[in-house]
Amino acid sequence: MKRFALILSGCGVYDGAEIHESVSTMIAIRKAGAEYQLFAPNREQYHVVNHLTGEEMDEKRNVLVESARIARGQIKDIIEFDPKDFDAIIFPGGFGAAKNLSDYAFKGSSCRAIPEIEKAIKDTIESGKPLGAECIAPVVMAAVLKGATVTIGSDEATAKDIEQLDGHHIVAEHNGVIYDRKYNLYTTPCYMAAQNILEVYESAEALVNAMMRA
Amino acid sequence: MKRFALILSGCGVYDGAEIHESVSTMIAIRKAGAEYQLFAPNREQYHVVNHLTGEEMDEKRNVLVESARIARGQIKDIIEFDPKDFDAIIFPGGFGAAKNLSDYAFKGSSCRAIPEIEKAIKDTIESGKPLGAECIAPVVMAAVLKGATVTIGSDEATAKDIEQLDGHHIVAEHNGVIYDRKYNLYTTPCYMAAQNILEVYESAEALVNAMMRA
Repeated sequence: MKRFALILSGCGVYDGAEIHESVSTMIAIRKAGAEYQLFAPNREQYHVVNHLTGEEMDEKRNVLVESARIARGQIKDIIEFDPKDFDAIIFPGGFGAAKNLSDYAFKGSSCRAIPEIEKAIKDTIESGKPLGAECIAPVVMAAVLKGATVTIGSDEATAKDIEQLDGHHIVAEHNGVIYDRKYNLYTTPCYMAAQNILEVYESAEALVNAMMRA
Repeated sequence: MKRFALILSGCGVYDGAEIHESVSTMIAIRKAGAEYQLFAPNREQYHVVNHLTGEEMDEKRNVLVESARIARGQIKDIIEFDPKDFDAIIFPGGFGAAKNLSDYAFKGSSCRAIPEIEKAIKDTIESGKPLGAECIAPVVMAAVLKGATVTIGSDEATAKDIEQLDGHHIVAEHNGVIYDRKYNLYTTPCYMAAQNILEVYESAEALVNAMMRA
């Protein structure tokens, strides 16, 4: 049975992992006959957003603790991730990828991944195993993997940032998967192109099924 | 296009709505060619649980605000729910159904639903439209609808509580749907019987598809 590592960044689109993308990826992995282990960084979230109003809240929350909501408690600190235990690794999207896993939301094309995420990505590359990224998470891949070819759908500003990071951007539909042979990297737009939750599921399923054949 | 109302109870299995059940139901509704509107009560959660450790946290969170994470902000206060705007209503599970929508987690077979949830259920019954409930939420139905026939899978203690509430319990597998003709009520076990997230999806999809034929 193939084993996927899934890297979460909190719980909720505006300050953490996008919940529909995370859950869709988990369902698609089981449907493909594989299993998964969830991981997240054990650090404070950049901030907490009230998802009803969109306003910042005067609270502190931990990325690993909040990610554990999506995981029903079955989650590990990203520093425990070792690619030898897995066949593949996937990063769902949500602003958490741009605020907690990296500083893309604030620094744009001069962004960097946090050290533990950069290490997980580089260790996976060294192992030769496939990486996957959804929605905005392909920007984090482009920040770490110079010259990577990815998709974030068709958003022009984000595509331009990817090019300025020395990456290459290819436009894709919601269920399209772009493959970078050099890095063994698969990307799909999810909510960067999907119009509803079913299209998000289709996007995640397309990514997982492509990676199952890797 | 059929319209479902989905009633959430927070965001996370131990103190709110079960995330996998909520998202699976949303995907299944879109896959069936229908659409949904999310609702939740605008009141403080009973408590906040650290989903990594299982321990209670010294925090206060609001059910509607946290449910908005699953909803990407697109959610309404349950007091705005009117069955004339919908074809059906579904309650996903999670401890939120037993802690925030009712006091079942504390009072067992003498539990009651909170007033706004009792009203939503009774208004739907009066409209003749179908109700659905997943996981532990069928207990809330049994508390409001005397003599209701439901399933919560095969857990004996919960089944006994349902009988003591004057309800009837029928054992079902994870993807089984029990129909109560008197109340036009559909129930399915989800995580009360499912072994993994794919079985939860299958449970939610079976419920939605049965209700689409109602």
